[in-house]
Amino acid sequence: MSRLTVRTRVHRFDADGEIAARADRLAGEEPLEIRLNGEQYAVTMRTPGQDVELIHGFLFSEAVITEAAQVRSIDFASGLDPDGRRNYNVAQVRLAPEVTTAPRPRRVYTSSACGICGTSSLDAVRQTPADAVCRHMAQSTQTGLLSPAAVLALPDRLRAEQRIFDTTGGAHAAALFRVRGRDDLELMVAREDIGRHHALDKTLGWALLKGLLPLHDVVVQVSARASFELVQKAALAGAPVLSAVSAPSALAVEVGADLGVTVIGFNRGRSCNVYTHPERLR
Amino acid sequence: MSRLTVRTRVHRFDADGEIAARADRLAGEEPLEIRLNGEQYAVTMRTPGQDVELIHGFLFSEAVITEAAQVRSIDFASGLDPDGRRNYNVAQVRLAPEVTTAPRPRRVYTSSACGICGTSSLDAVRQTPADAVCRHMAQSTQTGLLSPAAVLALPDRLRAEQRIFDTTGGAHAAALFRVRGRDDLELMVAREDIGRHHALDKTLGWALLKGLLPLHDVVVQVSARASFELVQKAALAGAPVLSAVSAPSALAVEVGADLGVTVIGFNRGRSCNVYTHPERLR
Repeated sequence: MSRLTVRTRVHRFDADGEIAARADRLAGEEPLEIRLNGEQYAVTMRTPGQDVELIHGFLFSEAVITEAAQVRSIDFASGLDPDGRRNYNVAQVRLAPEVTTAPRPRRVYTSSACGICGTSSLDAVRQTPADAVCRHMAQSTQTGLLSPAAVLALPDRLRAEQRIFDTTGGAHAAALFRVRGRDDLELMVAREDIGRHHALDKTLGWALLKGLLPLHDVVVQVSARASFELVQKAALAGAPVLSAVSAPSALAVEVGADLGVTVIGFNRGRSCNVYTHPERLR
Repeated sequence: MSRLTVRTRVHRFDADGEIAARADRLAGEEPLEIRLNGEQYAVTMRTPGQDVELIHGFLFSEAVITEAAQVRSIDFASGLDPDGRRNYNVAQVRLAPEVTTAPRPRRVYTSSACGICGTSSLDAVRQTPADAVCRHMAQSTQTGLLSPAAVLALPDRLRAEQRIFDTTGGAHAAALFRVRGRDDLELMVAREDIGRHHALDKTLGWALLKGLLPLHDVVVQVSARASFELVQKAALAGAPVLSAVSAPSALAVEVGADLGVTVIGFNRGRSCNVYTHPERLR
């Protein structure tokens, strides 16, 4: 599947005018329709590839499933291009009978990163699955979990895995690192997507499929900013640390403090800012 | 209103351990509930401030309104904190009688930038207001509209307006520049928000309130990547050029080509990439 990136033609200009026109590549971006037991559940834009992981991670993040076995089958046969070719953009998911597929909860809301979708009540903004599920996170029993030096190495280690970014300069990434010792973090998986939330969903789906949840000894590294949704996804999976290259949002910090997640921002290799639960780095 | 930024406490670490703990500031991020004629319409996360502009720009982007006069009044009185203080987070919007406030169209969908909200049919992804409205954009009558040098100056000119970013390092921005001559772009307005879509919504709401639409002689500059939603918003407002500091998405390029918008990416001051309709820079 060569849809991870798509060809485009780019005209390069400097101050004096056009200097070159050449073929270039952009990160792939196509809609994926997810149907649950025949009912439409969501349509989301994603970079094609690792769709099975994405679906598992997305349904886990949405609190539809808690384990991989609850997905009985995923059938991509019904997604067809206008010319009749299969495009793998419609996923018919069959869930185990015990999974309730109630209409998608109306706690969905418009994310600041999105701005075009969602309706909900104001009170519901923080009534997300993570709030309900993640109170288990030990907030102070992990003092000294990992060394600052090990944390500072993560952006470069993630960057080394970013094949789509290498080609396009425009794709987000997320990776899971297992803490084997305070100075010894092992890369478990790295995934890329045009959207940063789905990059993380893909890593969580991978972990779910491997039976590795909860991720109590895992540090999540993301390529961009830390939104509160990313903190919630990390918390829901049990990961105690989320590190981002750029700034966290105010709500990300609030949610991280509430849920026991160490939120790290501006992790630029030489130094980083720790906004919540700094004891894990001490 | 001091909620543009919020205080936080940050622990700064380098490889040797904690080097400082100090007060810091993050971009404000609070939910805004928009009610239309008493019915809930959307809840969106935004940086407080310029909410009247945001509401106008958002409703325009959603194709609910086409001119400012269709908003008869906006009442913020009903948004209260638990302690009873007004928080301005609920906007009761009264619309002119001729505006149809049909249930929010179900063409909403999950954006790649968001990943947690929206349901729709796959076919609807591109059936957005811009497709219906923006076929008016002259695609080839603006050859030489503006000089490459003028375009390359825009990121720095936007950066100079980013007060919240100065304080927090984490806020998006958008600005409108009027083309007075190919080398003479005039800053009309710049706005910031935790979400890049709302930064643009605020500028479009400002323009709508000033009676300046359509923006046929306006270049839009944004601080981050060019998503297809940003291209659609620009097109809906009639702006022929969208310039971004980072990469466009594949769909942004496709939509820009369709709607007649010149999509510029990787505008880094010395050079830029033009993905669609490069004639406007020639």
